Amino acid sequence: MNIYLPQGYRFSAVHCGLKSDPKLYDLSLVVSDIPAVAAGVFTPNLVCGAPVQVDRNRVPGEGFRAVVANSRCANACTGEQGIRDAEEMAALASQSVGGTFHQGLVMSTGVIGTMLPMDKIRNGIAAAAAELTATETGFLNAARGIMTTDTVEKYVTKSFTPESGETIRLAGICKGAAMIAPKLATMLAVIVTDAALEPLTAQRLLQTAAEESFNCISVEGHTSTSDTLLLLANGAASPIPLHGDSLEQFANVLRELCTELAVKIPADGEGGSHLITIDVEGCPNREDAKRIARKVAEDALVKTAICGADPNWGRIVSAAGTAGVPFNPKKVSLKLNGFELFKNGEPIPFDKKIVSDSIRGHRDTHIQLTFNEGNAGIRFWTTDLTTEYVRLNSDYTT
Amino acid sequence: MNIYLPQGYRFSAVHCGLKSDPKLYDLSLVVSDIPAVAAGVFTPNLVCGAPVQVDRNRVPGEGFRAVVANSRCANACTGEQGIRDAEEMAALASQSVGGTFHQGLVMSTGVIGTMLPMDKIRNGIAAAAAELTATETGFLNAARGIMTTDTVEKYVTKSFTPESGETIRLAGICKGAAMIAPKLATMLAVIVTDAALEPLTAQRLLQTAAEESFNCISVEGHTSTSDTLLLLANGAASPIPLHGDSLEQFANVLRELCTELAVKIPADGEGGSHLITIDVEGCPNREDAKRIARKVAEDALVKTAICGADPNWGRIVSAAGTAGVPFNPKKVSLKLNGFELFKNGEPIPFDKKIVSDSIRGHRDTHIQLTFNEGNAGIRFWTTDLTTEYVRLNSDYTT
Repeated sequence: MNIYLPQGYRFSAVHCGLKSDPKLYDLSLVVSDIPAVAAGVFTPNLVCGAPVQVDRNRVPGEGFRAVVANSRCANACTGEQGIRDAEEMAALASQSVGGTFHQGLVMSTGVIGTMLPMDKIRNGIAAAAAELTATETGFLNAARGIMTTDTVEKYVTKSFTPESGETIRLAGICKGAAMIAPKLATMLAVIVTDAALEPLTAQRLLQTAAEESFNCISVEGHTSTSDTLLLLANGAASPIPLHGDSLEQFANVLRELCTELAVKIPADGEGGSHLITIDVEGCPNREDAKRIARKVAEDALVKTAICGADPNWGRIVSAAGTAGVPFNPKKVSLKLNGFELFKNGEPIPFDKKIVSDSIRGHRDTHIQLTFNEGNAGIRFWTTDLTTEYVRLNSDYTT
Repeated sequence: MNIYLPQGYRFSAVHCGLKSDPKLYDLSLVVSDIPAVAAGVFTPNLVCGAPVQVDRNRVPGEGFRAVVANSRCANACTGEQGIRDAEEMAALASQSVGGTFHQGLVMSTGVIGTMLPMDKIRNGIAAAAAELTATETGFLNAARGIMTTDTVEKYVTKSFTPESGETIRLAGICKGAAMIAPKLATMLAVIVTDAALEPLTAQRLLQTAAEESFNCISVEGHTSTSDTLLLLANGAASPIPLHGDSLEQFANVLRELCTELAVKIPADGEGGSHLITIDVEGCPNREDAKRIARKVAEDALVKTAICGADPNWGRIVSAAGTAGVPFNPKKVSLKLNGFELFKNGEPIPFDKKIVSDSIRGHRDTHIQLTFNEGNAGIRFWTTDLTTEYVRLNSDYTT
């Protein structure tokens, strides 16, 4: 995969003592050499981490120089001291490249309710600043520093040339605990671009892209205290803010990048053995389709059935029926891996072995639910529920 | 435990070939020797079983003679034929004791989307009618006939004597797949009493009792297609409908019986290793408290933590924050098995080993969440999430 790194950014990661294995990075730094516009999308959880509270007060805005992120400790439910620690992290990150204390942003993932070991963090930021580089290695290291038990670093880069001018590059990293991780399914992501964007435009594009990507994945339905998606746009490719067709092109590329990044989260299955794609179609509106898709995606009985290659489609239809969305059960049809199992409210006889074999041993599973109530639809992604997931999540803090 | 059976009822169960093990009952019959008033509470799932559709059109009402219930096949998502089969089951049950075709009620639990083997059902009802008895054995057999992988039959009986007259008895049976069962967490329950009740009174009392009992348990958040709670009141103890203090006494006893029955569902843990009691207090109203309690109860990360005796209390507070109920995180406090771990938004240092030991090896776990936003509260019950649950639910229909 070609890597397209935007101009004017540097990246690094270090091990500062948060993870027990000294070979693993646990703190990442992303800086813009020139002040950048920043936008952000954050967890709707009322109980949100201190970093979320700090960043949310700063974006959308301009003049940002640095984003620092750590794993192992979420700095959530940590009271007033937690807020002070998050503010200090953001300030140290910005100051490490000559910025002011309020030109930084911060993200944390890990255990809730424990205080950040600030001595390690301070040393870590200083060390990371010394390692900053505009190379691919620096970029990949930054992706590694926010991993929890993700099995691979997650990144996507894109490049396009609008009619209006210089080539624009976008590069995103993310971590997703998802099924694979013994902790909250915290999602952290940073996307950097050398496009120039107005702050409110950046915020609008990021929210739209998130809605169709990061907001269309779920693992166990637990919205973390710390979910954070940040976009930095420094205008290094061209200082003139994108507009018109060029802006629309950028929006499309950003959405593609977000979708590719987001799907990497349920696809990285340490505990999970299937990536389940759920298409809900024929709804009166997109919101209804999403509520149904989310309900199916988060249903333990659907997920265990897929884990066991069990074509127990009744669980899928039943889960849909509890989504709080009105529909006529007699107009519902369902396909599993292309096999039509339920049509207009009547079961279709099928060969269980053939359908089961289509699930077993294949990482991708496809559920299609059609309601014949309208023309809106949505695509949603999740994983299955395995004994490995339970094992991982049964012993984390202790 | 003393068993108090109401007058004028008979019970039986048979093996009619639905379960593969011929030693296991799979069809139960409960009859009233005189026409009884019936009330019912049913699943809110839009995709509901044919028996639910049939019963819901009949209760509350009077003149009922029989309830028939089968396991192994839910008769849900079975189209028009499913409705005809459910109506025939109800009719055969009533006719088997001399009633008319519309004096029966029906309940089914099991796999969704497969048709009832009606030949077996017809023979089963005839055989069950021949076995009817007013003895404790008949009652316990009826409780066994609706078991799926419940490890014990579930029943509660009560007796009280109101000032107004004759001793009143109530007897309830239920099955709960819950954590313990490789299928939807279908809940079926039948309560019979020899009190006399007006139909609409019976319905009101049953709904109130269900709200504080069966509606306060959850396993994985999947509301089945088939949840059914029926109450029969035949007036055999005294034909005069209860009213005033006697009715209030009855309502209290009914609520106690429903609560004791309901808690048996999460408590019966084939897959589950803990019964988790969740007290949510200090909310502005009961509905808010319930939404928070349900969110915590259904959270995979909370449940896996308890499974692993991991005092990872941050997951509990985080789950509460996503319930859609407004509260101030700085006013939240949390106790786990009596240990205060979070107070007014600040973490309290604690000995992880001591708290972990209080979870490990003890079947009961107690979570107390206090919000300091009002005076309403609720008690909710659930189980933990174990590898055994996943194993059981990964291979059911095939």
